[in-house]
Amino acid sequence: MASTSFGDRLAHAVQRTQLPLCVGFDPHLDRLPVDLRAGFSGLRGARFRDKAAHAVLAWQDAVLDGLADRVPAIKPQLAFYEQLGAAGFAALEALCAGAQARGLLVVADGKRGDISSTAAAYAQALLHPEGPVAADALTVNPWLGEDTLQPFLGVCAAHGRGLFVLVRTTNPGSAQLQRRGQPANLSVVCDMVRRANAGLVGQSGTGPVGVVVGAQAAAEAPQIRAQVPAAWFLVPGLGAQGGGAADSLAGARPDGLGALPSSSRGVLFPAKGDKELLEDVAQGVSARLDATASGLQAAWRV
Amino acid sequence: MASTSFGDRLAHAVQRTQLPLCVGFDPHLDRLPVDLRAGFSGLRGARFRDKAAHAVLAWQDAVLDGLADRVPAIKPQLAFYEQLGAAGFAALEALCAGAQARGLLVVADGKRGDISSTAAAYAQALLHPEGPVAADALTVNPWLGEDTLQPFLGVCAAHGRGLFVLVRTTNPGSAQLQRRGQPANLSVVCDMVRRANAGLVGQSGTGPVGVVVGAQAAAEAPQIRAQVPAAWFLVPGLGAQGGGAADSLAGARPDGLGALPSSSRGVLFPAKGDKELLEDVAQGVSARLDATASGLQAAWRV
Repeated sequence: MASTSFGDRLAHAVQRTQLPLCVGFDPHLDRLPVDLRAGFSGLRGARFRDKAAHAVLAWQDAVLDGLADRVPAIKPQLAFYEQLGAAGFAALEALCAGAQARGLLVVADGKRGDISSTAAAYAQALLHPEGPVAADALTVNPWLGEDTLQPFLGVCAAHGRGLFVLVRTTNPGSAQLQRRGQPANLSVVCDMVRRANAGLVGQSGTGPVGVVVGAQAAAEAPQIRAQVPAAWFLVPGLGAQGGGAADSLAGARPDGLGALPSSSRGVLFPAKGDKELLEDVAQGVSARLDATASGLQAAWRV
Repeated sequence: MASTSFGDRLAHAVQRTQLPLCVGFDPHLDRLPVDLRAGFSGLRGARFRDKAAHAVLAWQDAVLDGLADRVPAIKPQLAFYEQLGAAGFAALEALCAGAQARGLLVVADGKRGDISSTAAAYAQALLHPEGPVAADALTVNPWLGEDTLQPFLGVCAAHGRGLFVLVRTTNPGSAQLQRRGQPANLSVVCDMVRRANAGLVGQSGTGPVGVVVGAQAAAEAPQIRAQVPAAWFLVPGLGAQGGGAADSLAGARPDGLGALPSSSRGVLFPAKGDKELLEDVAQGVSARLDATASGLQAAWRV
């Protein structure tokens, strides 16, 4: 029997939690609980990385406790784990397993993109259920062309996994290539996404291949939505990056599905200057989630 | 004192070895020496990955022995290490350290690209001398825009590290975005590269920011060279992907510098069907290197 497609899995998760929100895991070491920071402060090199990864492990477990049954998905930022080396990669593996054990979907934010056998190796590394990370979805970069999505799509179709293709990012220079041309380059990427979803759209009306469209590009979201009617929008930029709830949901379909805003620091960490101990993390996350959720739910019309 | 720039470091390495060749490390597990494959065959999951990474460690050490003092640089393909999880990441760290201890430059082929603090985390993870991988250069993807190169450039300028920006890749669909528009999108990327090198061009006439231009695009190489006169070309596609020596060197400057062809399987592995034992790897690599080098050196006019 074929696995349920990722589009349907995400739709079910949003309907179950009644909250279209993905929580980004960007473990900024200087924002970890003060008692955990003591474990690696002053160290350097491999010893620093091992102890810091140990702290991240404890912290992320507490964050997951605060998120379980509240949000549909998390989004680890792979760069923050890679900077801790092999120990960090082990922490990433543990995060994904811990999240999935708590019923959370995992979107690995790696922005990968490569050709043929190398793309297949990334799919094995990050998406395949027998791989070390086994995320439910992965962010991918389309610059190398449509054929480079194929090895990822094979794993998606076979194992209910998904992709989010970078269409319009949140940074100041994102328009430089993404909006260049008439029609803009991002339209070419939307065409790739529409073709990739063909034949894979599930009961929810969504397919396994979504797009990344930052909250700052809310004005463009309806036009992008028209080009990729079956794509989930992963929408970074809510909260710390300045996007509001309504902007984050601008790409939603008429049925309210299809937009998944993402917030990281606003949920993960207390306000700068406020101290939080490890034992208070789950409760702190839950409280900050309440604030983010009420704004989102007010703007969300299902 | 500022570090020697990566452009000059690479120029010195090519002049010292008299061979413009980068050897790619793509550890295809099914091509490893037969005696090493016995160590992980039939296993699954984390146990498979740990044993396979152990085999890769032994194999890559033997390959490095065959390459030392012969080539200027190696290029590990990060995807192949990531698919072995934390154990694979540890093998990547060991590869880079082992290569640098033997005087080889390391180009981490990760094709990373991300924004602000995430790009900074990738730079820390993969390029910074105090990070776990500490490669000498990194391949990066320009789709997100010029501002996303900045965090990498800071590490490059401070620590003699380099970048290779994806301009024209070797896959069938590479023209879809890279050659779209008039002038083509890749010209916008060349402009980014030229600006990034401004003020950082060393005695060799080359800067720290290079470009990736596949051997299959040899006809376009002179035009790209005119746009980025100070950039090193990293040229995948020599050998197994079908590119010839002359095509691989089509982007070289008049002084013979500036083009670094890359070959992976043709140097790493014996012909399919030929068996090689671990104890024969260094000698096998050296012999295969002789064949690749003679073709390159015949086409190389310094």
